[in-house]
Amino acid sequence: MSRVSGASDETGALQRIGSVIRECRRETHLSQEALADAAGIDRSHMGKIERGERNVTLLNLIRIAGALGRLPSTLMAQADL
Amino acid sequence: MSRVSGASDETGALQRIGSVIRECRRETHLSQEALADAAGIDRSHMGKIERGERNVTLLNLIRIAGALGRLPSTLMAQADL
Repeated sequence: MSRVSGASDETGALQRIGSVIRECRRETHLSQEALADAAGIDRSHMGKIERGERNVTLLNLIRIAGALGRLPSTLMAQADL
Repeated sequence: MSRVSGASDETGALQRIGSVIRECRRETHLSQEALADAAGIDRSHMGKIERGERNVTLLNLIRIAGALGRLPSTLMAQADL
């Protein structure tokens, strides 16, 4: 990936972390609703995070990772971030 | 660190990532203002991020890490996240 940051890179980054969250959620056999509830995040917001449509905050990433039993840094590294 | 998430854990997480950003910035011999400008982040917001007073977003963390020449996942792991 280019080191030059731009809008499309940023969209790609959000999409990658969303995809990693979705993959981990499916491996953990959780529905999107169950993950949202476990993480204390609004269900529709969780859907937007998984689709890369929201700029997820650090605290929400920590909550999601905790609900998935992963480290946030591991999720980030899996997303090539 | 306890796996139980709570307000103080979350404050601690924001303070740890802020401290890691500050340490890396100093190692890189950048002023807080120079880092803010390089990352395209408002200078007063950068100060709040370093002090753990703001819930930094993924895109800002990516921008900060890029300006520091680090991977965001590395900064997170250094912050025990």
